[in-house]
Amino acid sequence: MRIGLLGAGRIGQIHGRNAAAHPKATLVAIADPVPGAAAALAAETGAKVAPLDAIVVDPAIDALLICTPTDTHADLIERGAHAGKAVFCEKPVDLDAARIRACLKVVAAAGIPLMIGFNRRFDPNFAALRRRLEAGEAGTVELVTILSRDPAPPPIEFVARSGGLFRDMMIHDLDMARLLLGEEPVEVHAVGAALIDPAVGRAGDVDTAAVLLKTASGRIAQISNSRRATYGYDQRIEVHGSKGLLAAGNVPETTVSFAGAGGITADRVQHFFLERYAAAYRAELDAFITAVRTGTAPAPTGADGLGAQVLADAATLSAESGRTVRVG
Amino acid sequence: MRIGLLGAGRIGQIHGRNAAAHPKATLVAIADPVPGAAAALAAETGAKVAPLDAIVVDPAIDALLICTPTDTHADLIERGAHAGKAVFCEKPVDLDAARIRACLKVVAAAGIPLMIGFNRRFDPNFAALRRRLEAGEAGTVELVTILSRDPAPPPIEFVARSGGLFRDMMIHDLDMARLLLGEEPVEVHAVGAALIDPAVGRAGDVDTAAVLLKTASGRIAQISNSRRATYGYDQRIEVHGSKGLLAAGNVPETTVSFAGAGGITADRVQHFFLERYAAAYRAELDAFITAVRTGTAPAPTGADGLGAQVLADAATLSAESGRTVRVG
Amino acid sequence: MRIGLLGAGRIGQIHGRNAAAHPKATLVAIADPVPGAAAALAAETGAKVAPLDAIVVDPAIDALLICTPTDTHADLIERGAHAGKAVFCEKPVDLDAARIRACLKVVAAAGIPLMIGFNRRFDPNFAALRRRLEAGEAGTVELVTILSRDPAPPPIEFVARSGGLFRDMMIHDLDMARLLLGEEPVEVHAVGAALIDPAVGRAGDVDTAAVLLKTASGRIAQISNSRRATYGYDQRIEVHGSKGLLAAGNVPETTVSFAGAGGITADRVQHFFLERYAAAYRAELDAFITAVRTGTAPAPTGADGLGAQVLADAATLSAESGRTVRVG
Amino acid sequence: MRIGLLGAGRIGQIHGRNAAAHPKATLVAIADPVPGAAAALAAETGAKVAPLDAIVVDPAIDALLICTPTDTHADLIERGAHAGKAVFCEKPVDLDAARIRACLKVVAAAGIPLMIGFNRRFDPNFAALRRRLEAGEAGTVELVTILSRDPAPPPIEFVARSGGLFRDMMIHDLDMARLLLGEEPVEVHAVGAALIDPAVGRAGDVDTAAVLLKTASGRIAQISNSRRATYGYDQRIEVHGSKGLLAAGNVPETTVSFAGAGGITADRVQHFFLERYAAAYRAELDAFITAVRTGTAPAPTGADGLGAQVLADAATLSAESGRTVRVG
Repeated sequence: MRIGLLGAGRIGQIHGRNAAAHPKATLVAIADPVPGAAAALAAETGAKVAPLDAIVVDPAIDALLICTPTDTHADLIERGAHAGKAVFCEKPVDLDAARIRACLKVVAAAGIPLMIGFNRRFDPNFAALRRRLEAGEAGTVELVTILSRDPAPPPIEFVARSGGLFRDMMIHDLDMARLLLGEEPVEVHAVGAALIDPAVGRAGDVDTAAVLLKTASGRIAQISNSRRATYGYDQRIEVHGSKGLLAAGNVPETTVSFAGAGGITADRVQHFFLERYAAAYRAELDAFITAVRTGTAPAPTGADGLGAQVLADAATLSAESGRTVRVG
Repeated sequence: MRIGLLGAGRIGQIHGRNAAAHPKATLVAIADPVPGAAAALAAETGAKVAPLDAIVVDPAIDALLICTPTDTHADLIERGAHAGKAVFCEKPVDLDAARIRACLKVVAAAGIPLMIGFNRRFDPNFAALRRRLEAGEAGTVELVTILSRDPAPPPIEFVARSGGLFRDMMIHDLDMARLLLGEEPVEVHAVGAALIDPAVGRAGDVDTAAVLLKTASGRIAQISNSRRATYGYDQRIEVHGSKGLLAAGNVPETTVSFAGAGGITADRVQHFFLERYAAAYRAELDAFITAVRTGTAPAPTGADGLGAQVLADAATLSAESGRTVRVG
Repeated sequence: MRIGLLGAGRIGQIHGRNAAAHPKATLVAIADPVPGAAAALAAETGAKVAPLDAIVVDPAIDALLICTPTDTHADLIERGAHAGKAVFCEKPVDLDAARIRACLKVVAAAGIPLMIGFNRRFDPNFAALRRRLEAGEAGTVELVTILSRDPAPPPIEFVARSGGLFRDMMIHDLDMARLLLGEEPVEVHAVGAALIDPAVGRAGDVDTAAVLLKTASGRIAQISNSRRATYGYDQRIEVHGSKGLLAAGNVPETTVSFAGAGGITADRVQHFFLERYAAAYRAELDAFITAVRTGTAPAPTGADGLGAQVLADAATLSAESGRTVRVG
Repeated sequence: MRIGLLGAGRIGQIHGRNAAAHPKATLVAIADPVPGAAAALAAETGAKVAPLDAIVVDPAIDALLICTPTDTHADLIERGAHAGKAVFCEKPVDLDAARIRACLKVVAAAGIPLMIGFNRRFDPNFAALRRRLEAGEAGTVELVTILSRDPAPPPIEFVARSGGLFRDMMIHDLDMARLLLGEEPVEVHAVGAALIDPAVGRAGDVDTAAVLLKTASGRIAQISNSRRATYGYDQRIEVHGSKGLLAAGNVPETTVSFAGAGGITADRVQHFFLERYAAAYRAELDAFITAVRTGTAPAPTGADGLGAQVLADAATLSAESGRTVRVG
């Protein structure tokens, strides 16, 4: 399976290196508007540098990894669909749900495999939790609790064009909530505030937020986000069901602790998302490659990308209006 | 300090024994409509059995512990106020906020000390968390997370007259949220469902619920409740602030664990609220006795009782209507 | 059951209060050479102050609690035996094994119940571990690991007359090792040093020590002791068996933790032995009272007191000589 | 830096892959008496297959990785020394201390860099513990506790030629004890038994063992080993010092736990040494390559290999004789 990489930024480098290291795939071409970025990754992986337009239509390429800026995703997916490529696209498909719907129609018409990059589904801890949940260990799901806190806020320029915390950051948690609830939420209530940096508020966004989701049968998910966590990248999930509680905790930097007069101190949790989710990114790309090679449908699907975006839009609207938003 | 106990049921016995064991107080009289209940506790503590009406006006009694059914609380507080007694009253003052307001006016006019029994404030773990929070260890509060789950649902007859989960069970968490947020919530959104037992739903109540609170400055609290937890009485609090995260965890039955082929299994958390909060009940009564003896104002105050009730009413309305409710 | 207390020092006050609070026993008399000590405890518990010689032979007294200095234990046990009293005696019976043997002969001849105060057997955590071990949860015992560290060294005057660390401090761990191994050790190897305070070494004792025990069938116990632990009173046990590992951990002061830039800090472990073992002391006295009342044999027995002392003597000899010592 | 690999068995494959993936080194040649083993690894890494004798003297090769059977190590080190190669050799140098001493003389005469493969020193958790210990966080070392338990016994044929548990398995812990004590042990006492499998005993070995080490200044290390641990590969270290306790715990398979009626169950610890120590093996080879490239002395040194072997010999003798053995 021959792969072309579109975008050699931070996340593109991750996927590019994982593609190059995969035993069943070859990274053949890399495009990036920053020439040095593509060249450096090409030198490291043995791929060649090529113009994006060429990669998208290159008949020798089977699959595209779309790691370009968000506002190009939907167009590139459609171009890949027209060219008959299998497509892996980083989340989100687009910041606009209508645009996503239109894009997914093109994908459906073309019949190409499309997978959206919700990496957390592939974290070994969260994946194990989900497997055990689906095996019935916790019984029927009642309450899902997701705590997700970044170690530090992004640059304020990024905030302005991110679509806002709910679409940029919480979308990962909304995807996990959909997955773990086992039912679609029908009601979204969100609150948020700029408590960390007033500049975030001036940019029209929030840096601290929480959401309540409810499904038709009454299952509840609560999510909280913060753009700051002094102790590392806080990523926890709990699923409370009729038989008990399945929980996935944080990953500490080491297992070392010190017991002294000030108490017993364990290490901070892993700080950087690339470290925390390194195994998840490998498993995610392997899932894409395996699905395409075996002709099975990859997941998360385009519909998953749309589903999470609809919830993120609803949360944004709820937080801005102070009203509860119905969806679905 | 001479104490009269009104009500010798489950919680009355706790307070009665703690009063009798307190070095600075004497439990002198006990009233209960069930004669055996008062007599048994009297025999154990050295107090005498007396009619409620006599205890309330007995000039030899300094303070009343009101542990009777909820619908008698406000009347008994008022009668105690007229008689000039210091009053400790189990939560809630009343299920109706207007009735609470009227009662608190009588208390204010009489100038008696009144303390409301929110026992969790006195749990050594939660009290330590609060002390450290107020000392600034976590910086400015941003997000409060409270998980509170009973090991098993109450009898369905109790559900019917309890005022509902938000007023009966979550009121404790709402009180803690008010305390830990350091600001009054202005917005309440609640969801709930009868997921454990349809009979609860038929009785007009829920057994699984969550609430989002927001203060004027944007601080957020999220609370979730369940009437069932297979692993014990789940009682956890996290306060996320600008400097870090203060958390108080569950108390296990023992510190014993077993590591075997099935993993590493620690004990369930303490199951029964009387065990889990035994130290809290002792500290709570000591705080009341100390406040009365030293002439300082006891807390939680009647206003705290009202504040939590207003939030519980708002949560009930929100869950029933699907709308967000403004308070304050 | 009417109880006389001999000795109203630190440990005598514990047992005296527990006896007075026990529903099936009455503390009737207290003797102590320090008049104020006996009087204060008598005032608190409703007992009377009496001379030791009178209590020992008082026909109205059923049982004696011996909490006097170590060098009086054996004599008082024998006097209690002659008077037909049930006797609870704090460990150790004597610092000399020959003296213990003689004393136990007197006890056997008199046929009185005798229980030795190894409080740790009654700690709820260690007792649960033992119960589960004896129920077979960990399979056949292979390796017992006991870590026991005091928060701070005792006064140097105490060290001089304590019999040394192995007889004063490690004797508790040696008793637990005997109990958990399920077989008598036949080989004792000990090492020790004065690493904390050279004055301890000048007094002929050690403040840091470890022991290896081996039973005839090859089971192993390792114990380590320190007279200093900056993080509290470190008391841990692990039993490794054919089916897995049973472990009992430390008890933290509270369940509160703080996650910040410096890591995640939990509370120190409970610092003071009276706090750490409060429940153990209550359960211990209850076991004594229950055994005497029901006519069953109390445990730990005098033979247990002897068994632990023999191991402590062997460890002392081993550490001093550098040789392994055979016992049994 | 051009590397030749001698031995492509289980551990040779690990080092070979890590060498091939290292940015500053090239794996150029692989020798193994099993032709398929060398060929498979060569195909995967891009190295060539070559006879061992040729690799050892190949002037185009800078460094040798010796991953052959133990009884060939000393000879191959000497041949590498004569050929002027930098040498990394898996532990142990030899099962006979005299042979090690002779070998190290050859190494010293040749002046080549020699590093011995004690992988645990490079485990990120243990390395962090050591770094913090050396930075003084725990103060002066007093007591080192090492628990090391394999998930399952090796094949009985392996036991017979392994040199015994102390030389094959505990040697890793003895190396860590030397490192963490900060002083050489002068006294070794060991006990052991065949508790898991009588066949181990018939082969003259033990499967359960413990050691006490003492240094000249009185510092103590206790080590316990078992060839069986139902809950995974148990690898824990504690260092108790004047300022507190530094501990490195086990690594769980995932962070998922389940709380239910049977308690709260966390995952077993990582089971397989190649998984548990994957990062350690990478860091170990990087340390070797970096030392050789920068001309600094690699560690663990040959003297470290000898030091651990002397302790393993002493432990073996002590366990067999029942006597304490002086060393150094």
